[in-house]
Amino acid sequence: MWSWAAQVGRWLEVEAALARACADVGLVDRAHADAVASVCTLPSVDLERLAAETSAASTPIIPLLRQLTDGLPVEASSALHHGATSQDILDTAAMLGIRSACSIIEEDLRGMGRRLAELADQERDTVMAGRTLLQQAVPITFGLKAARWLHAVDRHLDRLRSLSFPAQLGGAAGTLAAYGEQGIDVAGRFASLLELCDATLPWHAEREILHEIVSAVTAVSGTCGRISGDLLLLAQTEVAEVVDGRAGGSSTMPHKRNLADATFAVASARLAEASAASILTGAAMGHERSAGSWQAEWVAIPRTLEAAAVAVERTRRTLEHLRLDREQMRDNLAQTYAAEPLAQALSVALGRAPARAVVDELVDLAARGHADLLELARRDARVTAAIAPQTLDDLGDPYGYLGSTSALIDRALQRWRQEKP
Amino acid sequence: MWSWAAQVGRWLEVEAALARACADVGLVDRAHADAVASVCTLPSVDLERLAAETSAASTPIIPLLRQLTDGLPVEASSALHHGATSQDILDTAAMLGIRSACSIIEEDLRGMGRRLAELADQERDTVMAGRTLLQQAVPITFGLKAARWLHAVDRHLDRLRSLSFPAQLGGAAGTLAAYGEQGIDVAGRFASLLELCDATLPWHAEREILHEIVSAVTAVSGTCGRISGDLLLLAQTEVAEVVDGRAGGSSTMPHKRNLADATFAVASARLAEASAASILTGAAMGHERSAGSWQAEWVAIPRTLEAAAVAVERTRRTLEHLRLDREQMRDNLAQTYAAEPLAQALSVALGRAPARAVVDELVDLAARGHADLLELARRDARVTAAIAPQTLDDLGDPYGYLGSTSALIDRALQRWRQEKP
Amino acid sequence: MWSWAAQVGRWLEVEAALARACADVGLVDRAHADAVASVCTLPSVDLERLAAETSAASTPIIPLLRQLTDGLPVEASSALHHGATSQDILDTAAMLGIRSACSIIEEDLRGMGRRLAELADQERDTVMAGRTLLQQAVPITFGLKAARWLHAVDRHLDRLRSLSFPAQLGGAAGTLAAYGEQGIDVAGRFASLLELCDATLPWHAEREILHEIVSAVTAVSGTCGRISGDLLLLAQTEVAEVVDGRAGGSSTMPHKRNLADATFAVASARLAEASAASILTGAAMGHERSAGSWQAEWVAIPRTLEAAAVAVERTRRTLEHLRLDREQMRDNLAQTYAAEPLAQALSVALGRAPARAVVDELVDLAARGHADLLELARRDARVTAAIAPQTLDDLGDPYGYLGSTSALIDRALQRWRQEKP
Amino acid sequence: MWSWAAQVGRWLEVEAALARACADVGLVDRAHADAVASVCTLPSVDLERLAAETSAASTPIIPLLRQLTDGLPVEASSALHHGATSQDILDTAAMLGIRSACSIIEEDLRGMGRRLAELADQERDTVMAGRTLLQQAVPITFGLKAARWLHAVDRHLDRLRSLSFPAQLGGAAGTLAAYGEQGIDVAGRFASLLELCDATLPWHAEREILHEIVSAVTAVSGTCGRISGDLLLLAQTEVAEVVDGRAGGSSTMPHKRNLADATFAVASARLAEASAASILTGAAMGHERSAGSWQAEWVAIPRTLEAAAVAVERTRRTLEHLRLDREQMRDNLAQTYAAEPLAQALSVALGRAPARAVVDELVDLAARGHADLLELARRDARVTAAIAPQTLDDLGDPYGYLGSTSALIDRALQRWRQEKP
Repeated sequence: MWSWAAQVGRWLEVEAALARACADVGLVDRAHADAVASVCTLPSVDLERLAAETSAASTPIIPLLRQLTDGLPVEASSALHHGATSQDILDTAAMLGIRSACSIIEEDLRGMGRRLAELADQERDTVMAGRTLLQQAVPITFGLKAARWLHAVDRHLDRLRSLSFPAQLGGAAGTLAAYGEQGIDVAGRFASLLELCDATLPWHAEREILHEIVSAVTAVSGTCGRISGDLLLLAQTEVAEVVDGRAGGSSTMPHKRNLADATFAVASARLAEASAASILTGAAMGHERSAGSWQAEWVAIPRTLEAAAVAVERTRRTLEHLRLDREQMRDNLAQTYAAEPLAQALSVALGRAPARAVVDELVDLAARGHADLLELARRDARVTAAIAPQTLDDLGDPYGYLGSTSALIDRALQRWRQEKP
Repeated sequence: MWSWAAQVGRWLEVEAALARACADVGLVDRAHADAVASVCTLPSVDLERLAAETSAASTPIIPLLRQLTDGLPVEASSALHHGATSQDILDTAAMLGIRSACSIIEEDLRGMGRRLAELADQERDTVMAGRTLLQQAVPITFGLKAARWLHAVDRHLDRLRSLSFPAQLGGAAGTLAAYGEQGIDVAGRFASLLELCDATLPWHAEREILHEIVSAVTAVSGTCGRISGDLLLLAQTEVAEVVDGRAGGSSTMPHKRNLADATFAVASARLAEASAASILTGAAMGHERSAGSWQAEWVAIPRTLEAAAVAVERTRRTLEHLRLDREQMRDNLAQTYAAEPLAQALSVALGRAPARAVVDELVDLAARGHADLLELARRDARVTAAIAPQTLDDLGDPYGYLGSTSALIDRALQRWRQEKP
Repeated sequence: MWSWAAQVGRWLEVEAALARACADVGLVDRAHADAVASVCTLPSVDLERLAAETSAASTPIIPLLRQLTDGLPVEASSALHHGATSQDILDTAAMLGIRSACSIIEEDLRGMGRRLAELADQERDTVMAGRTLLQQAVPITFGLKAARWLHAVDRHLDRLRSLSFPAQLGGAAGTLAAYGEQGIDVAGRFASLLELCDATLPWHAEREILHEIVSAVTAVSGTCGRISGDLLLLAQTEVAEVVDGRAGGSSTMPHKRNLADATFAVASARLAEASAASILTGAAMGHERSAGSWQAEWVAIPRTLEAAAVAVERTRRTLEHLRLDREQMRDNLAQTYAAEPLAQALSVALGRAPARAVVDELVDLAARGHADLLELARRDARVTAAIAPQTLDDLGDPYGYLGSTSALIDRALQRWRQEKP
Repeated sequence: MWSWAAQVGRWLEVEAALARACADVGLVDRAHADAVASVCTLPSVDLERLAAETSAASTPIIPLLRQLTDGLPVEASSALHHGATSQDILDTAAMLGIRSACSIIEEDLRGMGRRLAELADQERDTVMAGRTLLQQAVPITFGLKAARWLHAVDRHLDRLRSLSFPAQLGGAAGTLAAYGEQGIDVAGRFASLLELCDATLPWHAEREILHEIVSAVTAVSGTCGRISGDLLLLAQTEVAEVVDGRAGGSSTMPHKRNLADATFAVASARLAEASAASILTGAAMGHERSAGSWQAEWVAIPRTLEAAAVAVERTRRTLEHLRLDREQMRDNLAQTYAAEPLAQALSVALGRAPARAVVDELVDLAARGHADLLELARRDARVTAAIAPQTLDDLGDPYGYLGSTSALIDRALQRWRQEKP
């Protein structure tokens, strides 16, 4: 996608489209435009030489044009790059690459959404500990967790679908000067040939559209990094509620269950954010075309989109291979779940403070032994003296404290299903 | 807007709305809810004590509730903060603040848009140098520059208008557990009372909506920083094409024409970006509520919105007080404008390389003396031998090379005028 | 430290020192300098009015000088702010604030170091699981973990001690023009009166020194954020190896053991990084004094130092109140520790692949039940058929696999003890 | 430097050194270590296959070891990678790469320093406008500007020289467990064979050293970005005080004087900062080795160092080819220089306010015409009525207002010359 050949290929595609657009409005001869189009193919270009010349010229377009001109009849050469500036070609080609990259990201996100919708539905009653500040709080279900992730994915898809990918054509200072009266027609035709959107104005210096795209994409990779990060936490040896079905231990540490894909998703999300920063920040002073900010984008755009795509793909793969340990989820929850109802029940008999002291003690014991808090309570004389066995049993049912969990899952699923085109 | 009193005021507003919402669905007694609402006013709160207690408790809500409870009849106290977690209050109140801040930013942006539309139209024929890589390139008009800025503002307004501001209600782990079957109704009612949007799901850990808002807002401030930065460049002593009408020299340096507002707009745009980074980046591991990322938002949200608002306001003010020096624009342009047509005309007579040598020499002379290039050409024997005086005169007309400038301005104006509600 | 009064106080201190320095080299009358010094006190200034005027003037120094001049005999007023530019005062005062802030951070870091040295030594044999990629790996001791943190603190202290805090004096464009031949003497005297370092050159536009300080400070807060983050992980309900001695459960969730200070340390480290970014990044074009970057520093410096100080203080406090659960550390480790030696021992009898299959099965069982892996092995017929009970017992001793742990702790302690002044 | 082959080459170098270190302390057989060393060469490795396997395995070291083992006698294979973890190899190899990259940067910086020292000395009397907030302020000399840049370079060289580059050896969890009693000896020997520094402790999770290096390097590239940015400002068409001697106009715009190298230096400085962010920020929770942060470094380290090196090299080249237009500097300055003395002289005759009005008017005229302010004053009747011609002439001498310029240049040169090893 962002290899040298792929990039050069897009520049050629753009130059060909420009020549055709100029012919379509009658600014250049049709035969000349055809000649340009036929030379604008990868085999016409010596890629290695171009790389070397790019480095010397500080721009790829001038040496590319030189190579193309060599293969063109002299009379056709004026149809090549007619009225354009290098940035017109580079920005338009970047948009072609961005659009493809976004469509791959979208496809992966959709796959992730399908998997999450499945998990949300199937695991809607899979009770587990809700955790806040990295401490167990009150119960949730894994289905709700999946539904929350699904909803994030769902909204990202909306956001990605709302993006537009404009062509860039402005000429040396954004006035379309070389096309006389026909500038706007050429620009419209050019965009249309490339199936890009026709920008209201050239955007050499107004990078808002890029800001919008890059924000949306890094929001996606940020979400993926967060999901993968949460899965890493759930897969910790001591938590062990999920595992990547592919995770084998290392040869030297047979007990390890590393989540390689999730780890790299976290890393890639960080890299996407970092690369994006050179696009998103730094109000560049620069009039009609900036000195420095734009050149940084040449590198930052591919890096950002590549890293984001990796974050999405690896998170999707992790979710696909995810195996839940529902029993472990329930056992982990048992360690704390009954604490609050137990404290309430005990305080009726013992008063608030003494009840709390008993519960605190039992909670610490449960933590130490990864034990079922209620099990410990049943063996505690202070508790059994105060609470009848049947009552005690009822305290341990997390299903009684799930509130709107199922309704919330339905909401997320409903929205997801509506959205599907 | 983000003062301590304003923030506490919003927390009170949110607590009152929550009590009312619970009463509306029948979960708490109406009279108790009214009692809660009546105590939820700033005079009920000792703000200084609250600040001190917040610092000790690491959260403002628990001490706030303590103060409110002191003013409530015992029987009404269960109607206070019913079923909520601190984050529900803080996030919802933050959304109220964000919505107000965004609406101020929108208002300022609209003002800026009106001014830019005026400039785009009035200055559509005000010829000046287009500049790329900080060098004069080919002519544009100031109207086109204003139109480009207008279009950026126009798109930002679209983006801001598309934002939604959801309430937050989830309870301890996002399941609305304390409301039994009625969680979704309470949440809907709660949002509606505050005129916020009803989130599909609680978003304690899913901060995508915040990412979207903060991206949009820093995109706005980034644009303002760029516009202000470009104005600073145009106002440089040696360029002197614009001036802030309010800029007087300092007492010690009577020649200075500092653009104070533009300078602070640039600074504020940087600050907005920096503050936003702690919201936008860092895929936070955190299950149902994170340890650290969310707490950083308490500070980062106000800072980002304040800085962005300053960037917008100061850019708007700079534009309102902007005075153009149209003559200077034209004189600066004269320094280079004729270079290309002159080179072409000369090369017919002298050949390409000798023509270029003459032009290079004249360009350097013009640069040195801030002189009119064509004026110099008229006094150069090599030129006058090759080109007739009348032909020479015609080379100097920048209007011949403005391409679609006026049509592009119309496009931007047309879109702007459509958009106005 | 960074309150309005504190900042104004430092500006006054700097203005007084400047007047004295000018008197010392004979440029202003001693009596006039004394008059200036005596008016440069907080009671001479109407702080609220100054705040309002600052906002209007876009700089605090001009209105401050106006207020001071009002309190000065006319003939002394030329001794005030003699030859300085606003940035001289603001930068020098910022350095005074930075130096104090750094010295508080240093003091807290030293306290943290003492606590970590204690932990490193006392817990050198406290065996626990080393964890990589959030999975148990091989054993370490808590002492080694503390030693690693200690060493980071130790190096930070070196780095902080190597910082220098220069005064700033350059005049309008950094030439010390107003002092004639005596500029360098005035600057030296000025720095010396404030006990700041005498900069080789004015650094209005060369912010390398600030970059160095801010990098060092955010490196410190980054380390503190990481330590606090690791403590949050160790304190998770399911891990429960450490607890903040002050952590009580919430009233509604008696089982919670939130680490409030650690959480805010993580948040503050993020905030410090974000604020620092507007100082550390953005190669500002700007000649002798920039338009925008410097003004952003006014806000970014206090924010960065405050946030960093909070990160350090709260991490130190968390460590001070930290309670270890050594038994739990050992139990958690027992879940996996024997896996590798068991696999090796079994493969002698069963062959590599079958041995691995048995171990994989046992590891999963141990994970599920938070059980002692060796305990499970002792009850497995395939194991007991292959390995003698005594041999099996020996496999479970983590002390045999600690390598240089103790020697590494000694290295860190030795360096720490040498460094103490 | 960071090509795939170069990276694999460093991994091989590190594996060879590890085998030798183990042999040196007697842990492995010397002959086996020699066998390892002889297979650790690029020709032993199928680079393409390794790249594919790395992508599948999510780590390069395991497939690399597989390839190496294939080429080793079975009995020697235990001498390969003995007791190490992948991170030991990758971090140590990264340090070798970083050290080389830093030494290239240092060399370029020294070259830049020599050029700047030359400029500082030769241009010490080359008067030009000092500019603040992008407005002319008071005069400086180009020599002073160069001296300020020189001093920044000088301090960067100190900072780079103070960096240390440690080897990494810790084994699976940083305890050097596999080496028994000899861990510290192996680590010391290993570092010494690679001429790296012997770290006090393994630093798998303590990335402070990397933070220090990366801060220092991005501080360098930030300075270079700033210098290049200032040169771009000085080279603007309307300022024209410097030019890149290699800058020719484009074929279509013969008047352009683009500074390609300076432009790419600005872009590269931005890219270095952005890449560095994923190393510098994000207090990674991670115990003994993190999940995600470290993997991001694999990419971020090469990117940061490459971009920084480009920023330095291109800035150095720009400075080497820099041509000053001393006459233009003087002419630009003439536009404003006399404003302050003129206002003072006039106010004696006319009073403060009327004098200021006259000066304001003349300043605006001078700006408009890029004219000499004093020249205009000589033709103004209000001025000539108030000030004698001779007095007027004296007002225009900028040399009278250079203060300590020359002494400051000497200071910078003196420090620079001392520092040279």
